Amino acid sequence: MTPDDVLGRFREYMVGPTRFATLMSCFELGIFDVLRERPDSTAVELGAAVGAKPDAVEQLLFLMVKEGFVAFDSDSRGYCLGALAGVAEADLGRARTYMNMIKVVALRQMFYLTESARTGTLVGLQELYGADGTLYQAVAEHDDLRQSWATLMDAVTARIDPWFFDTIDVPPGAQVLDLAGNTGLGAIHAYRHKASPGLRVTTFDLPPKEAECLANFEAHGVAEHCSFIGGDVFEGIPEGFDVVLIKHFLDMFDKDDVVRIVEGVAKSLHVGGQVHIMVPVYPENIEDSDNYNVDFFPAFFIGATMGQGGPQKLSTYTTWLEECGFEVTKAITKGSNDIPPDVIPVQAIISATKVA
Amino acid sequence: MTPDDVLGRFREYMVGPTRFATLMSCFELGIFDVLRERPDSTAVELGAAVGAKPDAVEQLLFLMVKEGFVAFDSDSRGYCLGALAGVAEADLGRARTYMNMIKVVALRQMFYLTESARTGTLVGLQELYGADGTLYQAVAEHDDLRQSWATLMDAVTARIDPWFFDTIDVPPGAQVLDLAGNTGLGAIHAYRHKASPGLRVTTFDLPPKEAECLANFEAHGVAEHCSFIGGDVFEGIPEGFDVVLIKHFLDMFDKDDVVRIVEGVAKSLHVGGQVHIMVPVYPENIEDSDNYNVDFFPAFFIGATMGQGGPQKLSTYTTWLEECGFEVTKAITKGSNDIPPDVIPVQAIISATKVA
Repeated sequence: MTPDDVLGRFREYMVGPTRFATLMSCFELGIFDVLRERPDSTAVELGAAVGAKPDAVEQLLFLMVKEGFVAFDSDSRGYCLGALAGVAEADLGRARTYMNMIKVVALRQMFYLTESARTGTLVGLQELYGADGTLYQAVAEHDDLRQSWATLMDAVTARIDPWFFDTIDVPPGAQVLDLAGNTGLGAIHAYRHKASPGLRVTTFDLPPKEAECLANFEAHGVAEHCSFIGGDVFEGIPEGFDVVLIKHFLDMFDKDDVVRIVEGVAKSLHVGGQVHIMVPVYPENIEDSDNYNVDFFPAFFIGATMGQGGPQKLSTYTTWLEECGFEVTKAITKGSNDIPPDVIPVQAIISATKVA
Repeated sequence: MTPDDVLGRFREYMVGPTRFATLMSCFELGIFDVLRERPDSTAVELGAAVGAKPDAVEQLLFLMVKEGFVAFDSDSRGYCLGALAGVAEADLGRARTYMNMIKVVALRQMFYLTESARTGTLVGLQELYGADGTLYQAVAEHDDLRQSWATLMDAVTARIDPWFFDTIDVPPGAQVLDLAGNTGLGAIHAYRHKASPGLRVTTFDLPPKEAECLANFEAHGVAEHCSFIGGDVFEGIPEGFDVVLIKHFLDMFDKDDVVRIVEGVAKSLHVGGQVHIMVPVYPENIEDSDNYNVDFFPAFFIGATMGQGGPQKLSTYTTWLEECGFEVTKAITKGSNDIPPDVIPVQAIISATKVA
């Protein structure tokens, strides 16, 4: 990599925010929707349809034409969908859900990343929303954060949970704890995928989640197999379980807290009990250019959600588990062929058994 | 371009803001400076040196390692500058000046781009600074905007003005008007590069610029050859000039205003008089991937500086000039080999003569 390569790469970085915003705005203004219905619209026609000055429409579409997303006919001065025409609605919807979360939860907050890294606090959340604490606390107070965040997380859970439950083994009749299980969706999925006589799934999360969680169990018809225990993972994890599930959670913390959590899980399990973890992981070779976790999660966790945390390599999690009295029995990273090309997180599943 | 290519490109866009912020933070925390002085520092040592938790330093550096900017030795767990080591300080300084401007002037403001495109106003400036009007008005009130903006513009002017004045012809003894000449730097450069007996350069800009402009003429020893006229380009341009210079200005406006300006310039010139314009331009083939103006300026002008505007193709400016009574005599785009790889704007010079 020559000095000119580095400088050229800097330029790529510098246009990152404007590129993202330009694409977002073309979606938000509805330009693509109009072009789908009325191909060959001019900037004047598009401007009238979306409520923006034709000059602005033309400016924003330059980049879409450069990318080949949209095509422009210089004779008719009409635009039509280019490569975007071939992308399925479901794929566009998934990508837009992620984009919207990034816009609302992270874009402005990135301005304050340096101060967040210095202080370990979410300076952006404080400045923009007057919110102390983490994103997960702020979503309770702020509709825009909650909607953009929850919509994404529901979509991610629906897509990724089947893979998780297909991959892990849960013994018949096991007593299962879903750690930091939020309002019970993971427990419901766990029961549905792994139902067996006597199987019981307990959601463990902060006490304010209880009412919504129990209502969800009722609504999904699993109330007699699922229950809720309120508490804080750092103040003690309920004991006496055969299986503990930890999904979308360990990546939120720095090593010291991850170790505290895993030690607590070790205490909660019988010897021979198992923990199944799903977490995004960095590639073992960080320079692997196909894995975008590195491009996203450090800034996202430190600057937008937690003020700390971020994924680790699978080998790092394995080492930490072993340090806490586990033997890792399975460690699988989801293959890039199984992940849609727009999806950033590369997830892994780690199964481990508590040893004596 | 397949649907998967489009989705993959979306992922590139989605990591744009976090990539930018991660790189910025490594600069701002001073991590690169420490590594330059103390190669092989560990995350613990870096954290102590820059005042951040080692975990956060490690997280932010993952991307720098992925890019090859920084190298990591997994045995010693020490970091050192990788490809960044070979980049000259002056080049890094130039890139950082641009990055800082993008961070302060544009990053957060991009959140509001859609509303800016709808309203033609700077919704982000209003939300973040309570500022009505344009960036150029807001810089007078807000130090952070002014510093990040003015530092960049001074650097750009110092780099680009020599090329401009080497390229244009100014007849001996000409009466020159520097349109929207701000506080006189362009006039000073014009006099220095083109001095001849009787040459006089007049800065034309809003009346509040007068005092600082005249002080600059004094300080640079050109007060007897340079003068200031206060006014608004849209309310009448002073008449009776041989040459009008328009630098970094036409790209701020939509077509209707550009035409008003050029018509005013036509009125201010004698027949045979010349206008010399320097402006960033889009490539004639918008899909030219080497030109990053398209990736940056639409969102930047609409969302961060003007609520309108953006560059055009050289051929578009040429057409507009011809529509206003000019004959274009020179139209040159700066070659990409003459532009450092980190620099976004690709500038052009257009010279045109007023015809009868």
